[in-house]
This record gives sequence, C-alpha cells and structure tokens, in this order.
Amino acid sequence: MKKIVILGSTGSIGRQTLDIVRAFPDEFEVIGLAAGHNTTLLSQQIREFKPKHISSLTHLDSPISNVTFTSLSDMAGIPEVDMVVVATTGSVGLIPTLKALKEGKSVALSNKEPIVMAGHIIKAYESQYGGQILPVDSEPSAIWQCLQGEDTEIRRLIITASGGPFREWDESKLDQVTPSQALKHPTWAMGDKITIDSATLMNKAFEVIESHWLFDVEWDSIEVMIHPQSTIHSMVEFQDGSVKAQLGPPDMRLPIQYALFYPNRPYNLMIPKLDTNISHCFDLKPLNSNRYPCFELALHTAKQGGTFPTILSSADEVAVNAFLTGKLAFTDIPHLMERVINEHLPGSGTEVSEILEADAWATDRSLKILEEYY
Amino acid sequence: MKKIVILGSTGSIGRQTLDIVRAFPDEFEVIGLAAGHNTTLLSQQIREFKPKHISSLTHLDSPISNVTFTSLSDMAGIPEVDMVVVATTGSVGLIPTLKALKEGKSVALSNKEPIVMAGHIIKAYESQYGGQILPVDSEPSAIWQCLQGEDTEIRRLIITASGGPFREWDESKLDQVTPSQALKHPTWAMGDKITIDSATLMNKAFEVIESHWLFDVEWDSIEVMIHPQSTIHSMVEFQDGSVKAQLGPPDMRLPIQYALFYPNRPYNLMIPKLDTNISHCFDLKPLNSNRYPCFELALHTAKQGGTFPTILSSADEVAVNAFLTGKLAFTDIPHLMERVINEHLPGSGTEVSEILEADAWATDRSLKILEEYY
Repeated sequence: MKKIVILGSTGSIGRQTLDIVRAFPDEFEVIGLAAGHNTTLLSQQIREFKPKHISSLTHLDSPISNVTFTSLSDMAGIPEVDMVVVATTGSVGLIPTLKALKEGKSVALSNKEPIVMAGHIIKAYESQYGGQILPVDSEPSAIWQCLQGEDTEIRRLIITASGGPFREWDESKLDQVTPSQALKHPTWAMGDKITIDSATLMNKAFEVIESHWLFDVEWDSIEVMIHPQSTIHSMVEFQDGSVKAQLGPPDMRLPIQYALFYPNRPYNLMIPKLDTNISHCFDLKPLNSNRYPCFELALHTAKQGGTFPTILSSADEVAVNAFLTGKLAFTDIPHLMERVINEHLPGSGTEVSEILEADAWATDRSLKILEEYY
Repeated sequence: MKKIVILGSTGSIGRQTLDIVRAFPDEFEVIGLAAGHNTTLLSQQIREFKPKHISSLTHLDSPISNVTFTSLSDMAGIPEVDMVVVATTGSVGLIPTLKALKEGKSVALSNKEPIVMAGHIIKAYESQYGGQILPVDSEPSAIWQCLQGEDTEIRRLIITASGGPFREWDESKLDQVTPSQALKHPTWAMGDKITIDSATLMNKAFEVIESHWLFDVEWDSIEVMIHPQSTIHSMVEFQDGSVKAQLGPPDMRLPIQYALFYPNRPYNLMIPKLDTNISHCFDLKPLNSNRYPCFELALHTAKQGGTFPTILSSADEVAVNAFLTGKLAFTDIPHLMERVINEHLPGSGTEVSEILEADAWATDRSLKILEEYY
C-alpha cells in the first residue's frame, strides 16, 4: 500500500484525491490530512480515513483520539510516507513541497504557486535528493503523459486554455465583473483562487511557467491556444512536426489518479470516458493575449527570473483575494500586480530564505497598495 | 548510412520516400528500386540515386550500366540491406514482406494487403526471425506513435476516417459514381487503389485489420470515427480513460519519415507543421457503417480468419480495378466481393502456400463473376 498525506484535503483537489483513494481501498493508506477552515468536512474525513496525523487552521469541535496535530511541513517529512499530495492554495505549499523533495518523496503537486515561486530550487532539489514532482493539474499532466517514452526532440509545447468565462465579453465591461460571475468557469469545477486565475488567464501563465521548469522547455517553445471545450488538455509537437495530444472529458480525477498511480493506468468507473457515440467538435484558436493583461505581465515577469516570479505569485494572491472580497475591480488585478512588480528590487532567488523574504515583502506591499483602491 | 530498397518507387509512397531520402542525403543509401510501368520516372530515379539493383515490369528504353535486374523478392533479401520499404499495391507486396522479415530486416510497410492477407504469419515471422514491421500509413503510424513508452493497458483504439468523397452524398445516387469522382479524395493525395478503397471505407477496414495484428488489440476494442479534417490521425484510449492522439496536417511524408528514422524525429522543413496562428476545428463523428457496406463486409470476413481475409483482399483488388476501368458500378464493388467470399471454402491459412492458393482462386473467381456485370 502506498502511504500518502494530503495537504488541502477539504479543497476541490483534496476531496477528489480522496475519491480516488476510496475507489482503490487496497492501494492507499492515508497517513495525514491537512485542511484549512472546513472542520466539518475534515472531521468526516478523519472518521473515514483514520489518519495518524492531522492539521487544521480552525479548532476542531469534537475531540479526536489517536491523532497527532502535525504542521504541514512536518507532515510532508514523515518517514513512512511515500507520496505527499500538495493540494493547498497559494504560497503555503512551497515549504512542504521542498521538505518532501528533500526527504526523497514523490510530490503530487496541484498547487502551482510553489513551482512558480521557486521552480529552479524545486528542480535542483529533485536532482539532489531524488524526490519527484508529479504534476496533478490537467494541462501539465497532459504534457507529461504525451512525453512518456519520448521526452527529447521537443519542438513546442501547446498548452490549451478554455479562455475562461469572459472569453467573448465586451472588454469595456470587464471592470464590472462580479466575483460570482468570475467563479462560473465554463468547463472546470475548481477552487476559488484558481478559478479567478483562470478568468484572468494568470492560471495559464502559471502553467507555462510550470511546464518550463518541469519539462525543461525554453520559454519561446511554449505556446497557448484557446480551446473552449477543454477536452484536448494539451499537446506536444516533436521536431519532425508530429503532434501528440492528451484528451478526455474535463474531470480532475483523471490527472489526480494518473499522478497517484504513475506509471500505471487502472480502470476507474468514476472517471468519464470520451463518448464515441456522439459527435464532438474541438476548436483551437490563437490566443489574443491583449484580452488578458495578467497573462502577458506574468510571463514577462517570470522570464526575468530571480525573485521576480515570487513577487508575481504573491501579488496575485493578494489581488485575487481582494477581488473575491469586493475590494478590487476585476480589471485592477493586473494593475495592482504591476505596481508591486515595478517596485521590486530583485534578488537572485537562489536561497529559499530569499524567496520567503520576497514573498513576505510582496504580500505586505500588495496589501498596502490595495488600500488605495477601496 | 541506412541501406534501403524501395519496392514501388514510382508510386505515391515511393516518390515521397525518395523525398525523405533526398532531404537527408547522408542518412540513406538506396540499394534497390522496383517499379511497375512508369519507366520514365524510374529511369530518372536510377540516374539520381544510382541503385545497384532495379526491377521494372516494363522494358527500360535507355541502356543502364552497373545495375542488376533483381526480382522484388530477391531485392527484399539482399544481405547488405537494412530496411525494405514495401510501397507496392495489392497482394504483390506479400512475398517480399515475408522474405525481408525472414532475413531479420525492418519493413516499412505502406502496402496494407500483405498484412490483411497474412497478418498472423507476418506476426509469427517477426517473433521467429527478429524482423520488424514499421507501419507507414498515417493511421497505424499515429497509433504506433501514441503507444511509444506505454503499449499496455490499452482500452480502445480509435481510428479516424475522413469518410471519403461521398460522405455526404445521397446514397441512392452512389451507383452513378464515376472513377474520376471517386479518385478525388477530400484530404489525402494517394495512389488509385487506396483512394477507391478510401471511398468505400474498405481502406479503413484494412486499417482496423492491420491494427488488430500490429498492436495485438481485440477486434471489439477498435473503433472508427469520422474526422473530415484528417488532422487527428488516430487515437489510443488507455484503461484509465486517458486518450492520446497523434495529429498534424495531412501529409504522408511524416509517417514515412517516422518509419525511416524510428525512433528519432529529425526536423524536416518540407513536412508541414500545425499552424497555431490560425483557428482549427476538429470534428469527430460516429461512423454510420450502413453507408459503407464494404466496411462491414470486410470486418465480418476478416474476423473469420483462416484464408478469408485473403479472399477479401483479392476480391477487392479485382473489384476496384474493374471499377477504375469502367467494368463495375461503385455500388457493385461490395456485391462482387460478397459473392466470392460466400463461395469460398476456407482453409486454415497457416501456410504461405495456402494463402497464395486462396489468392489465386479468389482472383480467378472474381474475374469470372465480374463477366456477369458488364
């Protein structure tokens, strides 16, 4: 049995990870569960999966016996654990990810911010300590799957994007967008932060950054195309011009299960299959990146390296949270970020401590600048 | 340098194979060229590629020095040759394919009839003598590419079909189809026999049969979907529901080059690439096999095994030739075949001699029955 801990067990990815565990009861033992504030669901999960270690940001009402309260970072380092599922949101996943890699463990990573903030350190840890990042997100998983058996002679990665709920909106009205409108993603059911990041296409920029690090592909060899149906999850073009694509109905349980069972692909009734009895139409369109200022800003910033990608991630976290709580207009998300990025005095970012300091500075500065908006 | 012979060098696949050879002059040495009746082109090819061995069904006008006239079968067995490209049409490719495999050579096979007639013998030769079939056709090549690195846990193969030029025609008017109409394939430029086989979907049935043998997949796990754009060349669904597809602009030089260079994928300016600056729409539709009686007949016949698939292939060869020369209506192609198949007293087909006898009988019988039609 594979011994796992799940950081972010009550979130969208955490819950679906437990769906997979439930579907294969003989394959996994849940050693630890860490959640934020949803104590009701966490309590249910504890009763069902009986972890030895738990973590919660809110005090649990009912007493729980035989469990140890353990920090996220300590949970990621528990010696008996084989795989750490990092399904947290924002920068909180960074330290546990590094800890797990340092202990040589597999990290099923759905939380993109750690790799955006510290992709170069994560890659260095992988080669130094033997741990491995297994991408859980749909698009990086698609690329990973397409690269099985041949991961050289890559000409381009083509990452698909639904384009979010505002793909066809009048651009002049985007400043009126409400959180509830932005949270209605056309094809994917996900957590709040990533859904807003999808609406701004920041999430797509994060996937470009993630793919740059995970698959060692140059920035200029990564393209994004709009694909409204979210069925082609991404593609790899090889040097000869042959393109491999990975596809299937949009359902996060497939990439989660792939990471959990890698390299095996057991049948799971729960995962929807491509229906060959009906007609499909897959559109692929060039990305009009003018529509998505966050996307351009993010890639421009990430390419500068050092501590810049950390600033990007931290400022986005503050801006998205501010938008969700009504403190910032949708169209001000990139403006706030740009101001913070422009003020940043970059460091080399080679040390984790530098990344953490940059994160703290950017969060602080973003919150300060935010005050001017409301 | 890889030493190759090309059987069918003046046909569509043969010419495009020489395009690849021309693009990589340091990689290949052409040891032999075999053609049918196009002596003008063959003479040009001989002057350009200077093969030691040639074969021609028609006498060459100009004298050629330093070449040996060699039969197809002997050419396939020349000791110094590494790879035999079998780009012939119809049953003529069978014996050279078996000969090359028996000598442990790689066979780049675009000619489907040999594997339809004797798939079980070809597979047995591969494992007995160490030769290998490298599929050159677009759809089997797509599946082969999708299976690189993971060729187990296959749930389904999904072979795409353009549907041919008559996909949208009024079925009641199909008996009026002329050869020139049937030779206008909507997406692929190919030889005459395969273009007619594409219009009847016989070619698609041949690809199902080929895939059954080459990739060791059960009949019921191979599906066909209509894909008018011919950009998604075929797909593999794995047990977990994940689908891998291989795609690219329809151009035979890609699968030819892939077989010639396998497993490498060098860049070739000549091969068109997927244009990410324009919009694409890929349709996938269920196959209405009622529209294509040859398809149903072919699969039903092939599944019976023994000498039946040989009869199928031989009767089709006669019927298509009769249609091309105005002796048989388009809609009579399946009728003629069905009559021959129904008369056949099957053998086990375990010996090559039995296959050849069945081929001779079916050709003879098809020609005899054909006389009733004109």
